[in-house]
Amino acid sequence: MSSPEHSHFAWKARVYWEDTDGGGIVYYANYLKFLERARTEWLRSFGHAQSHLIRDAGIAFAVASVNIDYRKPARLDDELTITCAAGRIGGTTVTFTQKIYRGTPDDLVAEAQVRVVCIDTRTMRPKRLPAFLTQEMLTS
Amino acid sequence: MSSPEHSHFAWKARVYWEDTDGGGIVYYANYLKFLERARTEWLRSFGHAQSHLIRDAGIAFAVASVNIDYRKPARLDDELTITCAAGRIGGTTVTFTQKIYRGTPDDLVAEAQVRVVCIDTRTMRPKRLPAFLTQEMLTS
Amino acid sequence: MSSPEHSHFAWKARVYWEDTDGGGIVYYANYLKFLERARTEWLRSFGHAQSHLIRDAGIAFAVASVNIDYRKPARLDDELTITCAAGRIGGTTVTFTQKIYRGTPDDLVAEAQVRVVCIDTRTMRPKRLPAFLTQEMLTS
Amino acid sequence: MSSPEHSHFAWKARVYWEDTDGGGIVYYANYLKFLERARTEWLRSFGHAQSHLIRDAGIAFAVASVNIDYRKPARLDDELTITCAAGRIGGTTVTFTQKIYRGTPDDLVAEAQVRVVCIDTRTMRPKRLPAFLTQEMLTS
Repeated sequence: MSSPEHSHFAWKARVYWEDTDGGGIVYYANYLKFLERARTEWLRSFGHAQSHLIRDAGIAFAVASVNIDYRKPARLDDELTITCAAGRIGGTTVTFTQKIYRGTPDDLVAEAQVRVVCIDTRTMRPKRLPAFLTQEMLTS
Repeated sequence: MSSPEHSHFAWKARVYWEDTDGGGIVYYANYLKFLERARTEWLRSFGHAQSHLIRDAGIAFAVASVNIDYRKPARLDDELTITCAAGRIGGTTVTFTQKIYRGTPDDLVAEAQVRVVCIDTRTMRPKRLPAFLTQEMLTS
Repeated sequence: MSSPEHSHFAWKARVYWEDTDGGGIVYYANYLKFLERARTEWLRSFGHAQSHLIRDAGIAFAVASVNIDYRKPARLDDELTITCAAGRIGGTTVTFTQKIYRGTPDDLVAEAQVRVVCIDTRTMRPKRLPAFLTQEMLTS
Repeated sequence: MSSPEHSHFAWKARVYWEDTDGGGIVYYANYLKFLERARTEWLRSFGHAQSHLIRDAGIAFAVASVNIDYRKPARLDDELTITCAAGRIGGTTVTFTQKIYRGTPDDLVAEAQVRVVCIDTRTMRPKRLPAFLTQEMLTS
């Protein structure tokens, strides 16, 4: 079960002091926070808060892998746009293609592939993605 | 030069996974990030990005002290409101009174007093607050 | 139940890129991480890992308040010493006096008072400090 | 100019509350902090503090890409070992192979490839790795 580039969700984030490092640019690990905020808001755009998915469906998402290329550094006060597209949906995993840009898409800051696994919060083991989620992703 | 509680600026922030800790609540240091975002946006509401103040006026702000009381923990997905009021404006310092609440002001998460010093970015020593800033703060 | 300045525990921490911000100094919230590492290691010096206290005694510690004065900024590669002394032990709370310095105690970076509450992890409400902990703190 | 797996440097890091998230495990972005600490200490093992390289040689390192696979979650109080091996040394770049494990190497937490670019701190553009560094890496 797979399909190329479903939703074209985008979320904005401002760069604050907390995100920068002594080099005057965003610290390399902190871009992963921006990526996660966009995935979280993408899920919320379907009506799913993760705290509710844990409580009601007993599932959570764990990141299995990240491949990220840093193109151009972001700096204090930059307003970034982070995209989130579910590129490949497997039985228990979703692979997201995500980009971070400043202003327009050609001012690319970073691009990443993030593979996420659906986890049963009681057993902490991989669990089949609920049908309702798969459906929403496929039709988004 | 002092005056009680000028502006009543408020800024919103969502709690993401990055903000929480293994106790299931926001990690105590991370509330200081929310406080700073609100101070940064308060300054931006006067038209001042800090990256421009550094570049154009050669000034930056360093935190001299924080007194924070944690009232109730914030959790994943909470939408927080952070207030920022410049309570006391001295020659080189400003003391902010800030609150963090969830939903309504009576659902208080934390309250803090944050004293900030204006710094000359070349000498890294305290510098008198520019008149334009003091004016804006007093009339806000 | 109170007593002045028991233990004089000290812990070292190196400043890495992750700790700094675009001003070239340690970000103000990150000093609270150093303070917590020292409190955690102070507790470990009595043989108590917090993950074990949660599992075996059903208790955890929540920070109720922090008063911190920033004296001199720390920078990349600095090796900091963080002290931790249990200054006042109440029924459910402990107030720590902590200092952060670089090299020798007179090169003071920050000093703080941190009040911590013992929490019952099932009810998430304050709980009397276990006698074994109070004893260890008083005789340390 | 390339060579397979030079140094087998290892550095230890304890997992603190600051590193965990509401899922009770280390937040996925924070493993990148552990990776960086190990690279920084690997460089320091040759006698090079990065703050000195900036000051004396006018160079710094920017991360160009990260490929990380998360194998098993790390938790509060875990003591992690982070390895750092310079796998491929190009004109301006170094690609590191890094592993994070708990206790013994077979209890693998994460493994990563991190490509780093040498930057001229005045121009902020890629710069040839200084010969002294390349030599040290090749003979390590």
